[in-house]
Amino acid sequence: MLISIVNPNATASMTRTIAEAAERACAPGTRILAVTNKSGPPSIEGHVDGAWAVPGLLDAIARAEADGADAHVIACFDDTGLDAARSLAEKPVIGIGEAAAHLASLLARRFSVVTTLACSVPILTDNLKRNGLWESCASVRASDVPVLAIEADPEAATRRISEEIEIAIAQDGAEAIVLGCAGMADFAVELSGRHGLPVVEGVSAAVKLAETLATLGLRTSKRGGYAPPRPKE
Amino acid sequence: MLISIVNPNATASMTRTIAEAAERACAPGTRILAVTNKSGPPSIEGHVDGAWAVPGLLDAIARAEADGADAHVIACFDDTGLDAARSLAEKPVIGIGEAAAHLASLLARRFSVVTTLACSVPILTDNLKRNGLWESCASVRASDVPVLAIEADPEAATRRISEEIEIAIAQDGAEAIVLGCAGMADFAVELSGRHGLPVVEGVSAAVKLAETLATLGLRTSKRGGYAPPRPKE
Amino acid sequence: MLISIVNPNATASMTRTIAEAAERACAPGTRILAVTNKSGPPSIEGHVDGAWAVPGLLDAIARAEADGADAHVIACFDDTGLDAARSLAEKPVIGIGEAAAHLASLLARRFSVVTTLACSVPILTDNLKRNGLWESCASVRASDVPVLAIEADPEAATRRISEEIEIAIAQDGAEAIVLGCAGMADFAVELSGRHGLPVVEGVSAAVKLAETLATLGLRTSKRGGYAPPRPKE
Amino acid sequence: MLISIVNPNATASMTRTIAEAAERACAPGTRILAVTNKSGPPSIEGHVDGAWAVPGLLDAIARAEADGADAHVIACFDDTGLDAARSLAEKPVIGIGEAAAHLASLLARRFSVVTTLACSVPILTDNLKRNGLWESCASVRASDVPVLAIEADPEAATRRISEEIEIAIAQDGAEAIVLGCAGMADFAVELSGRHGLPVVEGVSAAVKLAETLATLGLRTSKRGGYAPPRPKE
Amino acid sequence: MLISIVNPNATASMTRTIAEAAERACAPGTRILAVTNKSGPPSIEGHVDGAWAVPGLLDAIARAEADGADAHVIACFDDTGLDAARSLAEKPVIGIGEAAAHLASLLARRFSVVTTLACSVPILTDNLKRNGLWESCASVRASDVPVLAIEADPEAATRRISEEIEIAIAQDGAEAIVLGCAGMADFAVELSGRHGLPVVEGVSAAVKLAETLATLGLRTSKRGGYAPPRPKE
Amino acid sequence: MLISIVNPNATASMTRTIAEAAERACAPGTRILAVTNKSGPPSIEGHVDGAWAVPGLLDAIARAEADGADAHVIACFDDTGLDAARSLAEKPVIGIGEAAAHLASLLARRFSVVTTLACSVPILTDNLKRNGLWESCASVRASDVPVLAIEADPEAATRRISEEIEIAIAQDGAEAIVLGCAGMADFAVELSGRHGLPVVEGVSAAVKLAETLATLGLRTSKRGGYAPPRPKE
Repeated sequence: MLISIVNPNATASMTRTIAEAAERACAPGTRILAVTNKSGPPSIEGHVDGAWAVPGLLDAIARAEADGADAHVIACFDDTGLDAARSLAEKPVIGIGEAAAHLASLLARRFSVVTTLACSVPILTDNLKRNGLWESCASVRASDVPVLAIEADPEAATRRISEEIEIAIAQDGAEAIVLGCAGMADFAVELSGRHGLPVVEGVSAAVKLAETLATLGLRTSKRGGYAPPRPKE
Repeated sequence: MLISIVNPNATASMTRTIAEAAERACAPGTRILAVTNKSGPPSIEGHVDGAWAVPGLLDAIARAEADGADAHVIACFDDTGLDAARSLAEKPVIGIGEAAAHLASLLARRFSVVTTLACSVPILTDNLKRNGLWESCASVRASDVPVLAIEADPEAATRRISEEIEIAIAQDGAEAIVLGCAGMADFAVELSGRHGLPVVEGVSAAVKLAETLATLGLRTSKRGGYAPPRPKE
Repeated sequence: MLISIVNPNATASMTRTIAEAAERACAPGTRILAVTNKSGPPSIEGHVDGAWAVPGLLDAIARAEADGADAHVIACFDDTGLDAARSLAEKPVIGIGEAAAHLASLLARRFSVVTTLACSVPILTDNLKRNGLWESCASVRASDVPVLAIEADPEAATRRISEEIEIAIAQDGAEAIVLGCAGMADFAVELSGRHGLPVVEGVSAAVKLAETLATLGLRTSKRGGYAPPRPKE
Repeated sequence: MLISIVNPNATASMTRTIAEAAERACAPGTRILAVTNKSGPPSIEGHVDGAWAVPGLLDAIARAEADGADAHVIACFDDTGLDAARSLAEKPVIGIGEAAAHLASLLARRFSVVTTLACSVPILTDNLKRNGLWESCASVRASDVPVLAIEADPEAATRRISEEIEIAIAQDGAEAIVLGCAGMADFAVELSGRHGLPVVEGVSAAVKLAETLATLGLRTSKRGGYAPPRPKE
Repeated sequence: MLISIVNPNATASMTRTIAEAAERACAPGTRILAVTNKSGPPSIEGHVDGAWAVPGLLDAIARAEADGADAHVIACFDDTGLDAARSLAEKPVIGIGEAAAHLASLLARRFSVVTTLACSVPILTDNLKRNGLWESCASVRASDVPVLAIEADPEAATRRISEEIEIAIAQDGAEAIVLGCAGMADFAVELSGRHGLPVVEGVSAAVKLAETLATLGLRTSKRGGYAPPRPKE
Repeated sequence: MLISIVNPNATASMTRTIAEAAERACAPGTRILAVTNKSGPPSIEGHVDGAWAVPGLLDAIARAEADGADAHVIACFDDTGLDAARSLAEKPVIGIGEAAAHLASLLARRFSVVTTLACSVPILTDNLKRNGLWESCASVRASDVPVLAIEADPEAATRRISEEIEIAIAQDGAEAIVLGCAGMADFAVELSGRHGLPVVEGVSAAVKLAETLATLGLRTSKRGGYAPPRPKE
């Protein structure tokens, strides 16, 4: 099985972090095809970055589809371009944001998301409301750690995220945590041990859900909301 | 006052329809700057078309801002790229979809939207849910008239839309109608007379709301959800 | 164009404040007909005051309609009697509460309302839930300034409102502010500058929306919810 | 125990129907004080009738309170003036609309309301949404029987209501029925037998809930939403 | 009239507290049949205790039905087994949790529930969301007093509950309080006096609602959600 | 990896169908431990059957946990006893109803559930509302095929389900289908081909989600809602 993972931003070192998390999570027979969206911005922080990233992301998914990918993962926690990618691709597409939230909702009555910057909070909130998982969400919290600062100083980033987890537990009643950025993939195990609750990160969650759909032969419906684009003259 | 209106698709004849509707609606002192997004698809029908249209749309808004626009209108009923445009621009930005729905909610307890194709129904539904106007929405109905067929055969299009309005009144309890495509701007008055209820079209609605915000000196908040994009290294 | 604005309470000095805000906001060709509801209570603070005010308010609107008003504004932030007024009048009717909330939702993801007394909070919350704008509302906060204290000591009132705005920003994530009383119309510009975010007041918002509907030839639907009262034997 | 029941409309024959239903339902020791709102309209059909009825209704409740009523019932299915009455009275106030819906929600997963005219449907829907019982409501249906036609021709009215009950069961999945007008109080038993499901009418429901609150010594909270009106200078 | 009240847990002293509260609340002609579920756990604290209690509870209700009960009350604030009991019994069944919440919603715009342990909070929240009364609920708060500690040290329990009521008023805007455990039935009057707002406890509320339904001849609908179990081969 | 699957009803032939579907879906290294709840009813149709099944189900899960299961699946579409099982077990627990709905929501904007009998519709609706997936649900439809009739006459059952799928597509706008009973596990592939859209069945969905959680080392949170039962004296 071939799973393509597209990093919608142009930072190749972040693609490596993502690819490693995917390799750790995938089944023995699965190959990971990790792609950097070279025409995207260096990081996706807010609506404008997201908008610029989408055309390159869609190109990357179309190429991976031509190369035989059995399923696709969009490795930005905003689930950037997810609806368009689902309409474009034949094979199933999973966003890491939705993937982590779905799994967290199977582990706890209420989870909190700890993400990077405040500008992402309404985007993640909208996504959770739209897919209904807001019902299981205690809060979406910003750690004020920019995306690229995570790999620049992982210790400082973990410390800041850990503080925010503490607040989510104490004030919001969080029973599980979702790490709200692809760059945080390496922190889940340590933070889970430190805080004594499940910590879900999206890359591994999305890889397993992509494998699940591909194994079960399930593809995106082409009726209604994800109908393929109509040919233009 | 200068109001810029961007047609996110590349069809210049549709921009002319939009510009004429805007000119009819605007105040004596208002100038309309209508722009065609030449890098967009010929029409926006579904998520993929929308995604391809956004970068060119954002460029057009940035140029209009530099040219002194006091407010911006996005003339696609999907409100394509609205969040990104609001984050990018200094001046207020109005989508024609939200504009029509806001006005309709001031005229009737429940309105129905009659749009072009089925693939747009979930997009419009999502938008209405997100801004809360779903509470006043009786239904979103597709007329199965493609965007460019509206100007190719306006009579046939009006007939089909009129049939769908009849169903919305009888089955969904619609008390007002919102026309769900910029290309339908010319049909509102006739359809209102024919069906005996308010028919709101988005271009004129958005122009008046844009004038309203500009007159009152109100601009998009730069705190939180619409914070401008962070500078990248 | 003639816009009638009814102050549902009996305090004529408050009608003058309202009329001045309306005159500042309206278009060059618009005339403002400001009316005091002499049979109303001196101020509307809670459900009972509101109930006593409605018959006189409806009379005033009927008279303004007979005098040729093109649209009506109800100048109490509770949108007192709005449904009844819409059913009674031929021409469109706008409440200042809904007007301010609609405009604020076009400027920010989440706005907070700062109103007068605690007894108004559930009334405003109900209104926002009913028209769906609660989806964009971060909080409704009472400043504990009674309605008539606003004009008795505007400086003290502004100070108190300003403190509450600070809390709304810090604790509730407000990105814009709505001033929740007709008597606060004069404070918007100063508070917007002081706090660095959009501050919307309802009188000017309602006047512009009333002008918008009248210009576009849009009237309240007479089907369903706002059907005129049936004649009685 | 003394329960006051106010008929908000001016039709005395309807007050008699209401009083008889109340007498049948109340406990042995309860006395019923049935009052006609002589300053109200002959029937309450829509927002305008409701607005005109409220001042006289509030007067009647204040008088009943002075006469020693232990609880009050508002005998219009719209729950006309309920919030204002709760703020005004010391003793608990129950609307017949809310009373019937509360009881129906204890008997079935989903009930339908069958009311008089279409103009009442959005009023009842709003009430149910506001108090949360919309969650248990399958539909609100109009029988197109005007209020005063119920007593003019009870057989025809019952036939029409019965047809609408049939549709509510077949199409909306109604498991219980709420009769949506005080004038229908006499029809509940027969319709329940005919359709084989619980049929709740509001007068008896409200009388029992009023007795319940009075027996348990429970009164309307005077904090927050139902605070008494502030004294005016 | 015979009202059966089943204490779903096996603690007989708690059944006595419940029976006394029921006796105090019921009408002169009502007899109370209080039953301890001897096969249940000593107290119901969380999902597992609740699951073990249900079969014995259903047996007890079936026996009471055979013994001529006119209505049934489930005397655990979780409304343990309520849906199954309604499907099984011919006569109406009321849970004390729903009963208290229904009455509280007639007395105040927003009530808070103060219950025993944190593990009950999501159960009560689910129940309120399902029946719609969440709309009127300001908060569900745990006092951290285990069920059996209430009768072991009522003074300490009252003190702890009283502290939580204070917080509910100050922080959550509670206008009325619901006591969230059958064992708290005796505390309502004192706490209402101390805090100056209505305090509703579920046993008396449920007894009155059970009497109400029985008096009005209303039974659980056997269509749809509460259809009796199908016979098995 | 060892995945335990408990059939909450006592019909062993149904356990075999379930076990075969699980074997087909699971990864090469996974062993399936399929258990029949011998103390349960022959089939679970409605609330009462469900209530009787839970104690035996919890026992089966506790035994499987002692036998080294890495995750548990509850193989009834009602997700019978899921909350209690999650509180009791150390390892993750997945219900087949929630599993199928989660996967369907990744494949289509709106899915319909086609289940057995009408009495299950409100149970499934409640479950979907509680976990938020109602947001993606177009309808829950009963095929009127009793649980045990599925294996008695699979052809007739498939025909009836297929008719209901047709209605769900045409009337409810279903873009994907969820088969709402464990006994329907064998029909998914054929029905998907026949109707041209994704058809998800819960046993395979739950097995893959259970494997996913076990592979990623994720367990149910023991804070808050799923805290283990407190020890009793």
